Amino acid sequence: MLRYLTAGESHGPQLTAILDGLPAGLPIDITQINFQLLRRQKGYGRGGRMKIEQDRVTIRSGLRHGVTLGSPITLVIENRDWANWSLIMDPVKPIPAALGVRERRLAYETHTPRPGHADLAGGIKLNQHDLRNVLERASARETAARVATGSLARQLLEHFGVEFASHVIRIGEAAIKKDVPLNNLERLRSITEESPVRCAESKTGREMMAAIREAKKKRDSVGGVVEVIVRGIPVGLGGFSQWDNRLDGRLAGALMAIPSVKGVEIGLGFAAAAVRGSKCQDRIFYDAKGDP
Amino acid sequence: MLRYLTAGESHGPQLTAILDGLPAGLPIDITQINFQLLRRQKGYGRGGRMKIEQDRVTIRSGLRHGVTLGSPITLVIENRDWANWSLIMDPVKPIPAALGVRERRLAYETHTPRPGHADLAGGIKLNQHDLRNVLERASARETAARVATGSLARQLLEHFGVEFASHVIRIGEAAIKKDVPLNNLERLRSITEESPVRCAESKTGREMMAAIREAKKKRDSVGGVVEVIVRGIPVGLGGFSQWDNRLDGRLAGALMAIPSVKGVEIGLGFAAAAVRGSKCQDRIFYDAKGDP
Amino acid sequence: MLRYLTAGESHGPQLTAILDGLPAGLPIDITQINFQLLRRQKGYGRGGRMKIEQDRVTIRSGLRHGVTLGSPITLVIENRDWANWSLIMDPVKPIPAALGVRERRLAYETHTPRPGHADLAGGIKLNQHDLRNVLERASARETAARVATGSLARQLLEHFGVEFASHVIRIGEAAIKKDVPLNNLERLRSITEESPVRCAESKTGREMMAAIREAKKKRDSVGGVVEVIVRGIPVGLGGFSQWDNRLDGRLAGALMAIPSVKGVEIGLGFAAAAVRGSKCQDRIFYDAKGDP
Amino acid sequence: MLRYLTAGESHGPQLTAILDGLPAGLPIDITQINFQLLRRQKGYGRGGRMKIEQDRVTIRSGLRHGVTLGSPITLVIENRDWANWSLIMDPVKPIPAALGVRERRLAYETHTPRPGHADLAGGIKLNQHDLRNVLERASARETAARVATGSLARQLLEHFGVEFASHVIRIGEAAIKKDVPLNNLERLRSITEESPVRCAESKTGREMMAAIREAKKKRDSVGGVVEVIVRGIPVGLGGFSQWDNRLDGRLAGALMAIPSVKGVEIGLGFAAAAVRGSKCQDRIFYDAKGDP
Repeated sequence: MLRYLTAGESHGPQLTAILDGLPAGLPIDITQINFQLLRRQKGYGRGGRMKIEQDRVTIRSGLRHGVTLGSPITLVIENRDWANWSLIMDPVKPIPAALGVRERRLAYETHTPRPGHADLAGGIKLNQHDLRNVLERASARETAARVATGSLARQLLEHFGVEFASHVIRIGEAAIKKDVPLNNLERLRSITEESPVRCAESKTGREMMAAIREAKKKRDSVGGVVEVIVRGIPVGLGGFSQWDNRLDGRLAGALMAIPSVKGVEIGLGFAAAAVRGSKCQDRIFYDAKGDP
Repeated sequence: MLRYLTAGESHGPQLTAILDGLPAGLPIDITQINFQLLRRQKGYGRGGRMKIEQDRVTIRSGLRHGVTLGSPITLVIENRDWANWSLIMDPVKPIPAALGVRERRLAYETHTPRPGHADLAGGIKLNQHDLRNVLERASARETAARVATGSLARQLLEHFGVEFASHVIRIGEAAIKKDVPLNNLERLRSITEESPVRCAESKTGREMMAAIREAKKKRDSVGGVVEVIVRGIPVGLGGFSQWDNRLDGRLAGALMAIPSVKGVEIGLGFAAAAVRGSKCQDRIFYDAKGDP
Repeated sequence: MLRYLTAGESHGPQLTAILDGLPAGLPIDITQINFQLLRRQKGYGRGGRMKIEQDRVTIRSGLRHGVTLGSPITLVIENRDWANWSLIMDPVKPIPAALGVRERRLAYETHTPRPGHADLAGGIKLNQHDLRNVLERASARETAARVATGSLARQLLEHFGVEFASHVIRIGEAAIKKDVPLNNLERLRSITEESPVRCAESKTGREMMAAIREAKKKRDSVGGVVEVIVRGIPVGLGGFSQWDNRLDGRLAGALMAIPSVKGVEIGLGFAAAAVRGSKCQDRIFYDAKGDP
Repeated sequence: MLRYLTAGESHGPQLTAILDGLPAGLPIDITQINFQLLRRQKGYGRGGRMKIEQDRVTIRSGLRHGVTLGSPITLVIENRDWANWSLIMDPVKPIPAALGVRERRLAYETHTPRPGHADLAGGIKLNQHDLRNVLERASARETAARVATGSLARQLLEHFGVEFASHVIRIGEAAIKKDVPLNNLERLRSITEESPVRCAESKTGREMMAAIREAKKKRDSVGGVVEVIVRGIPVGLGGFSQWDNRLDGRLAGALMAIPSVKGVEIGLGFAAAAVRGSKCQDRIFYDAKGDP
């Protein structure tokens, strides 16, 4: 059973993850982890901070000469901007006296909770007046550690022939015009890697970029929808003995635990509401002689 | 920390749930549990089986004279149709020899997996040729035990002023025309209890019923969308220290663990994709002086 | 992964356990469960209550015709003395008004915490003035549910050739004179089943009985030590990736969770303190050419 | 709820621990963690390796200026001997070709399982022919990460007035002559810190040292018994609703998860077997009017 913990503040010295439960004997490709970290950082119209970071993973346990030992794996992603933050974010050293009251207040403390973030709720929950003490961990920066950990899980699944692809199907008003073919995920991956917005349709991709530019011009932001495709899953993952081993629930729980994700669908999703049962895609197993 | 296990086959003698972690001293209203079980069984156009069941809960531990002891609570929902199933579903007694080969095959065994169900995957996973051994537990009947357990959790939350309401916003092509007001959940509850399809708009409700009747006439089914509203949640539920204590993830995980649920949204949900960040409802905490 | 919850008060209507995770296709012998429940109730010098109970298990889910389905198993042990307790322990009905103040106080409430029990700590923890609300669940009666659940786990292990035996090696000052041979557990089991104190040496067994009688005469009690022997364990149970999958820790944790158990040893146990490393029994794998 | 994972091989670059669940606002004393790490390394008669290590903790997350943030804490203990091991233990780089067959075999691979260790079982479980792949994680070196994590938990408990002390009561045949007084733990701590074998009686301490020297002379080892004393525990830790929240079970489970620990007692422990119930120390709450 895989389990993991992550740690690290957004502007702290490093993110760390410990992944327990990966079996022994699996060769791990570090460049794959770094490739996924790079994909996380890309993004049309992303701000300056992402350029600074250039995340790279270091592995500090659990492998020997690139092969898993069956022991827990430690992943470290150093904060490349740490030098600029060490004074006010040092885990141990006290805040320097030399920091003037004004600088201290400006650089150090944050008292205005941002909408749509954990600042206000976290400040109340943890009894913190300086909201930096909240936002540093609540930050989506933490997902870099999940991406690195996820890349390990993906390498395990790929070892068993499971294949992954994802593409952006909507940004703002710009949405793809037709479903992508699911039978050639390698091609889908190579097309979306070329697109700055990971869109499989080049014209729609340009509309998406325009939507982002326009929002950015007004100092605003815009949302999107991503489709994730997984093929080759072995039969029987998850279970139905209890609510907490249902595969759909586990997938949705993991996805909605990503701060920016506000909705998850599986299969037809919400569209199923307007579709007759007899038309549902899942009906591919339907046997005409079967009891409906 | 609340945790629970449920047990019971769809046509077995009973469903059972054990809920651990409810604090001592909470008065429990059994009629509320039965009311929620009744709500689960209602439904415009539902088949005959639901009429048979008439679920009622019996409490076998964890309360004394209607008040929680802090010890685990046992909930039992007996199968009112057990007499008809006892021969072929008895947990212990062998299948009677008197059952002829043909009857046995007809009544007892199921070899055709139904689309959209766990039959095929479960049969492979558990190495079962008689798929009744799979579908009996994979059945959505199990959610009756979750409803009863959930009613206990709800009574705990209501004790602290948390308020719940839900209503159906879409069935097939029929969808509500405008958002319901969120400031009077009691009124919303009373309106939807009157509606056979739990719709807050009477005209839309009639369209929903027509959609169901039409699908049923063609021996087909149709989907829907439900909105759940919770008010008065204390600040700070969930957390952001790890992926698995994020509140959104936990809610989505629990909802998607209900067999029929194929999509979950929180807040704006997928609509957020087409909405500028500055227009998002969550921005109610926005402080004009704050860093956006 | 096996997990289970138990429920039920000592004088409530029933004990219930739900065991999740037993694989499908395992034949279960109910008489084995009842045999283990009977063994739990026996005991030289035990009081009257044990005679009343005569625990018997009923299975309400998870099996079909005596074979596991892979779905959770519900075990019920009814309280055979429930009729005498229903008035003051009913989970739902209010305490009858007819119960006079004096009777009520005598039969119903308990205000004096017993030494060596959870009464005092539980009363403070759960804010209960009537300590019956604490002791009913803290009671060792709950271990009957664990015995029934454990019998299912044992049947799974026995299916794979794991063999169990246990015997009493000390009661008060009476202790066995020499180690029992470990190579014939069937013989050990049959000898100890014959002994009222489960002692493998008949003379020592009589000394143990005398120790119990003597203590009882003085309205006192006396302790003992049990040795549990398990053979045929597959290599590799437990693990060393984290503290919480170490087999020794899991065994000790389960044993010390039995209210009366105050110490646990594995292998040489405390005796290892006085034995040179080179003499330790575990050294059987020692290879003379190996690095010590 | 506190939870933690540790990671790191015995001769790998570092040990890492992530502790999740410590509340925000707790000042942490790093010197206390290092003091506990030093205590772990001390030990009369310990071999050379311990001298090399000189463990020191670095904190990489979860604190800001020495105070907890409520976010997970990352503890790192670097392997000070890493330079000597990096060639054959590098997590990522391949084993250098320049390593001759003989050196490689000698320095790198281990094929002889040691008695009393996880080598044999681990090699079978993880399908490893080079037992170094097993012993590196199974090694008791991992307990350094537990000690560092435990020091954080101890600082939380000390904040609430809980006090800890421990002393060695037996090594080989040398055992303390009388119980230590429990009312002055500070004095007990200062006496045992002075003793090379942490014995509270100076004469017995010298006997213990002699026992160690004598065993060592014969290239052998000798065991011991430690008593741990905790005072000021708040009432109500643990619980009795399920087997897995019983405090005794949790303590014993954690202690027996330490590789060298073969027995755990709480209170009178095994001695309770020979003591009448009326004489048990726990009887201090006994109320003469109470129902025994």
